[in-house]
Amino acid sequence: MKFLHTNDADFRDKFSQLVRRSDMDMSGVMPTVMKIIEDIRKDGDDALFAQIAKFDKFTPTSTQDLLISTKQMQEAYDALDNTLRESLKLAYERIKAYHEQSVPKTWSMRDEHDVLLGAKYTPVDRAGLYIPGGKAAYPSSLLMNAVPAIVAGVKGIVVCTPAIGGNVNSLLLAAMHLCGIKTAFKIGGASAIAAMAYGTKSVPKVDVITGPGNIYVATAKKLVYGEVNIDMIAGPSEIGIIADDSANARHIAIDLLSQAEHDELASSFLITPVEAFANEVSKHVASELKSLKREAIAAESIRNKAAIIVAKDMQECVELINELAVEHLEIATNDALSYMNDIRHAGAIFFGHFTPEAMGDYLAGPNHTLPTGGSARFYSPLGVENFMKKSSIISIGRKGIKELGKACMNLADAEGLGAHERSVKVRLEDF
Amino acid sequence: MKFLHTNDADFRDKFSQLVRRSDMDMSGVMPTVMKIIEDIRKDGDDALFAQIAKFDKFTPTSTQDLLISTKQMQEAYDALDNTLRESLKLAYERIKAYHEQSVPKTWSMRDEHDVLLGAKYTPVDRAGLYIPGGKAAYPSSLLMNAVPAIVAGVKGIVVCTPAIGGNVNSLLLAAMHLCGIKTAFKIGGASAIAAMAYGTKSVPKVDVITGPGNIYVATAKKLVYGEVNIDMIAGPSEIGIIADDSANARHIAIDLLSQAEHDELASSFLITPVEAFANEVSKHVASELKSLKREAIAAESIRNKAAIIVAKDMQECVELINELAVEHLEIATNDALSYMNDIRHAGAIFFGHFTPEAMGDYLAGPNHTLPTGGSARFYSPLGVENFMKKSSIISIGRKGIKELGKACMNLADAEGLGAHERSVKVRLEDF
Repeated sequence: MKFLHTNDADFRDKFSQLVRRSDMDMSGVMPTVMKIIEDIRKDGDDALFAQIAKFDKFTPTSTQDLLISTKQMQEAYDALDNTLRESLKLAYERIKAYHEQSVPKTWSMRDEHDVLLGAKYTPVDRAGLYIPGGKAAYPSSLLMNAVPAIVAGVKGIVVCTPAIGGNVNSLLLAAMHLCGIKTAFKIGGASAIAAMAYGTKSVPKVDVITGPGNIYVATAKKLVYGEVNIDMIAGPSEIGIIADDSANARHIAIDLLSQAEHDELASSFLITPVEAFANEVSKHVASELKSLKREAIAAESIRNKAAIIVAKDMQECVELINELAVEHLEIATNDALSYMNDIRHAGAIFFGHFTPEAMGDYLAGPNHTLPTGGSARFYSPLGVENFMKKSSIISIGRKGIKELGKACMNLADAEGLGAHERSVKVRLEDF
Repeated sequence: MKFLHTNDADFRDKFSQLVRRSDMDMSGVMPTVMKIIEDIRKDGDDALFAQIAKFDKFTPTSTQDLLISTKQMQEAYDALDNTLRESLKLAYERIKAYHEQSVPKTWSMRDEHDVLLGAKYTPVDRAGLYIPGGKAAYPSSLLMNAVPAIVAGVKGIVVCTPAIGGNVNSLLLAAMHLCGIKTAFKIGGASAIAAMAYGTKSVPKVDVITGPGNIYVATAKKLVYGEVNIDMIAGPSEIGIIADDSANARHIAIDLLSQAEHDELASSFLITPVEAFANEVSKHVASELKSLKREAIAAESIRNKAAIIVAKDMQECVELINELAVEHLEIATNDALSYMNDIRHAGAIFFGHFTPEAMGDYLAGPNHTLPTGGSARFYSPLGVENFMKKSSIISIGRKGIKELGKACMNLADAEGLGAHERSVKVRLEDF
């Protein structure tokens, strides 16, 4: 596992490579993805069916072949063992309760000129949720994307998920039932993004597309951005942990591994002011690794993408973590909450010794769809607001235009926009 | 001026062309813009200086040559005539007061498991505002982009504006002084977007880029999206008006023209249930056109991009306007506010007979940077939230992990993520 010390002469060089960790190079897949999108835009279902046959290893001939029936979802849900079903329901309820706290609220006020001003929030008509399949078919991804859309009040929720050979993961089906999904398609990758962005005979055009995916999905989302809105462009998952020796080194080692087991490209960072603690965590990482089912993936991630940074004090730890702007940030110290105001950039912050990231991945309540690769500097976690938009509200009466109209005319005149000026002038004249 | 009647046999065909009015085809300029961005990314200032010499007709040789001094801004502000200066100040104050109403608020709560949950909002470190120059150098654009960034608390605000021959519009300079801009560069077009997205020796890398621009600017914003966040991809401006014969036909005609005078590609729509009123507005458009300084532009816009739609009743007007999802929507009827809940998609809604769009363009308070081309279905007006992002907050104690941990382990196990499961298990075991 890579070790960095902030007092090393080459520290800034090495650290800046960690800061620039996500150089997601889309140029390699760009031509392929552009072609997929263009074909679906031009030929609709014909292109879509052909792409599914090619990439997803089954051959649909009608819309019916693409649809996942609600009966199938119900059966999968009923077949769950009771404990797992209860756990899934608990997650759903907690995620829902959290997101209900953050619904943007319509507001209005009247100012001293009797002008009515405000903002009105409305859900988008249709949202498209992309949920990966295969090895990474996670029912939690469905909950985390569907619940904010449901809470926003979106009427038309459409799910796309790849079904290799026509089969969909049964846990994912069960989660669809739990979320009350009515419209779900067996469509994967860039084809799904293109179909939802432009619409085909089978797939309705949506207004917003959210959800994780590989580089093809990320590239397709970037390319359709503007035609629809998207949540963010996400890369491999990552964790940053600030801990001192009040933390349990074995716990911290496992938390690092819980990120590493996702993906060979996932990144895990520990920043600590205590060198001895750093060494201990490193030893536990090596020994815990061996007990993992996904040992090979985690080992490669730890080897290539992980780092332990020994800093001079907690203040330096905080400065470095702000530079990294990580997706998941754990602060495992006795006074973790006291750093609340110091953290400027992070997708989600997990405070204290009993808040492993996994709790947030499944059921703490906040969304697990989070900005990666440093984009927590400007992106937010997925939320209800991704499925709503606002309209500004303005209503001016006689009093308002009389008191404010002349200033507006001055500004319009200064910008050389005569009809703008005149639209106010005629109203003042015609009183 | 084009007339459509909803009871015409070919109405849906014609109307759907209006709905699909913005097919912003970036493919023509894409290679040029990609090259501009790649060059700046690779060669920094050298490429930037060369591009400015080529496109903006002056030849910078140092950072100093690019910078607009605060002294210059102050002088331009002092040189304004008093009335205009007061009008600009009034606009600034009103825009600021409105945006202060909509600052997203950090919140937290404890649930029944003593779990602390919340969301924390922080401003981005640096924002880049692109303000067009030349014919479309509008000080109002600067106010509308700078004020929400200021209200959000952004410390590093950077402005770029093209300076053809090295000269910057003096009104724009004055507006910069009013907003307290400290860092402004004479850089235009895609070069400015690239420089702010990737940073050069002269231009600091920012986190968010906002502001209007031509097809080169829009394409550059789309290409750098993900490296930075952007506000939206905007096309030509547009207005939709619902009016009945309680409105003054001449006023409505001028409101249509106030959009048309912006740009040959701007769109203006009137939807009314009263045929006689439609005819009257059309006559006024023809006669008012002649008095405009920007007659040629407005005439071409009205000829190619405007339409009057005669509907059977107000309900149909509302349905059609929701399909159009226009940037600016005026409702000019006596009972305008009663339609508040029926309007689902619009950038800004102007209610009543004394609320011409121009008032919102300059000083009503809400932002004039609004989604165009139907993207009000999913984009919001520019606001304080574009310059902030949130971090989710989670803190679980012993009670919380004891009561919720097992469910988390079940879900992690079901997804095959062993280290996730284990990160909870060890904490429960080590109690």
